Amino acid sequence: MDKPVNDHRFSDDMRAALYHTIFNRRDVRGQFLPDPIDEGMLARVLLAAHYAPSVGFMQPWSFTIVRDQGVKQKVHNLFSKAHAEAADMFEGEKSETYRGLKLEGIMESPINICVTCDKDRAGPVVIGRTHIPEMDLYSTVCAVQNLWLASRAEGLGLGWVSILDQQNLKEVLGIPERVEPVAYLCLGHVDHFKDKPELETAGWRKRLELADITHFDGFEKSADADDGFAQSLLGEMRKQQQGL
Amino acid sequence: MDKPVNDHRFSDDMRAALYHTIFNRRDVRGQFLPDPIDEGMLARVLLAAHYAPSVGFMQPWSFTIVRDQGVKQKVHNLFSKAHAEAADMFEGEKSETYRGLKLEGIMESPINICVTCDKDRAGPVVIGRTHIPEMDLYSTVCAVQNLWLASRAEGLGLGWVSILDQQNLKEVLGIPERVEPVAYLCLGHVDHFKDKPELETAGWRKRLELADITHFDGFEKSADADDGFAQSLLGEMRKQQQGL
Repeated sequence: MDKPVNDHRFSDDMRAALYHTIFNRRDVRGQFLPDPIDEGMLARVLLAAHYAPSVGFMQPWSFTIVRDQGVKQKVHNLFSKAHAEAADMFEGEKSETYRGLKLEGIMESPINICVTCDKDRAGPVVIGRTHIPEMDLYSTVCAVQNLWLASRAEGLGLGWVSILDQQNLKEVLGIPERVEPVAYLCLGHVDHFKDKPELETAGWRKRLELADITHFDGFEKSADADDGFAQSLLGEMRKQQQGL
Repeated sequence: MDKPVNDHRFSDDMRAALYHTIFNRRDVRGQFLPDPIDEGMLARVLLAAHYAPSVGFMQPWSFTIVRDQGVKQKVHNLFSKAHAEAADMFEGEKSETYRGLKLEGIMESPINICVTCDKDRAGPVVIGRTHIPEMDLYSTVCAVQNLWLASRAEGLGLGWVSILDQQNLKEVLGIPERVEPVAYLCLGHVDHFKDKPELETAGWRKRLELADITHFDGFEKSADADDGFAQSLLGEMRKQQQGL
């Protein structure tokens, strides 16, 4: 019934492996182990990142691998400062909950990786970046997501630390003006992976219904009642999401 | 030898499936077939997108599915205008090459998807977005990358059209002010997938060496000659990339 027209579809097992990776990827903060990461394994997850899509094939990313405890401590200090500032932005109960959350594993993870975007990597004019200047940053994010999925498949936990001042981070890592830090990541073996995102378990926010954020032919348009394809699609979404 | 410390690593077959998907994902522009996409399949790839990581678990994305030929034509008009403007930005030979490239499949693909980011989805203060306001856009890009990988595994081609004016796109799709379009995607069955990125084949740019864009403990720092881990990692990178 849902056999594709052409036979470019991967086998059931291969597709299941991809979906399993996607659904079981977690943002890891508190379960890092100090055990070293094998060089071959680290090369594999970085190569997965390097084969991300990029606007105009510019491959704007670089990977700065941080192992030095002194450098990590400086980054952790940036986190601590930003974290205290952030806590004051939440009100009442949310502020209490926020303070109790573990949000990074900078010191505990054996390896941190700063993924940056070099906007000058391919000269000033880049195919596909002419009208959306952020496209190179978006390409770099695609690399991060590849790295994240590959890490999960390798059994490595990865956490994205976004609570810090980017300008200060540039100073700590000696990142030149033209280059933008996109993601500061913590990577390492873990004691366990959580079943669900921690903010979901903590009751911070619920998983949305995919069908509720899907529109047709215009942003504020729902599916017509007599639109068979749309109704069938929404039904499939609800059924599949319920099954997860 | 590279057995992980803990047993959270997926099986060899599962990891191979993920890496195969990552290395064989392509930006598809010219190989779309008009055949319809099965609703169950489309639901699967969108559910994969919906399970992307998101800052503060805000899930800021929405998916506007475009099938209406009139709407697609309006978006194609935006592309044509931006494409002509872009062609004039390249000089000499590059401009000629640029004009000869097929860069979108808006009309030929049966389904277009506009992936947007609602910055108000979870209120004004979001965990992890307090110091990097772009984090919600980056979360949305992670959803796009999941969608892309799932599509490849399903045998569907996907192309990201970034040569258009975003403000005009918002008007065409009725996207409200607070919401930002992140990616306009073309999706459909394909005649074939290319072996390599088209811009690589066309000689526009070369695939970079991962080892050349990897740094240690600081952005401009190479590996020390006596740093066994770093040297071994770089050697693995070169060997693995050569084998692709």
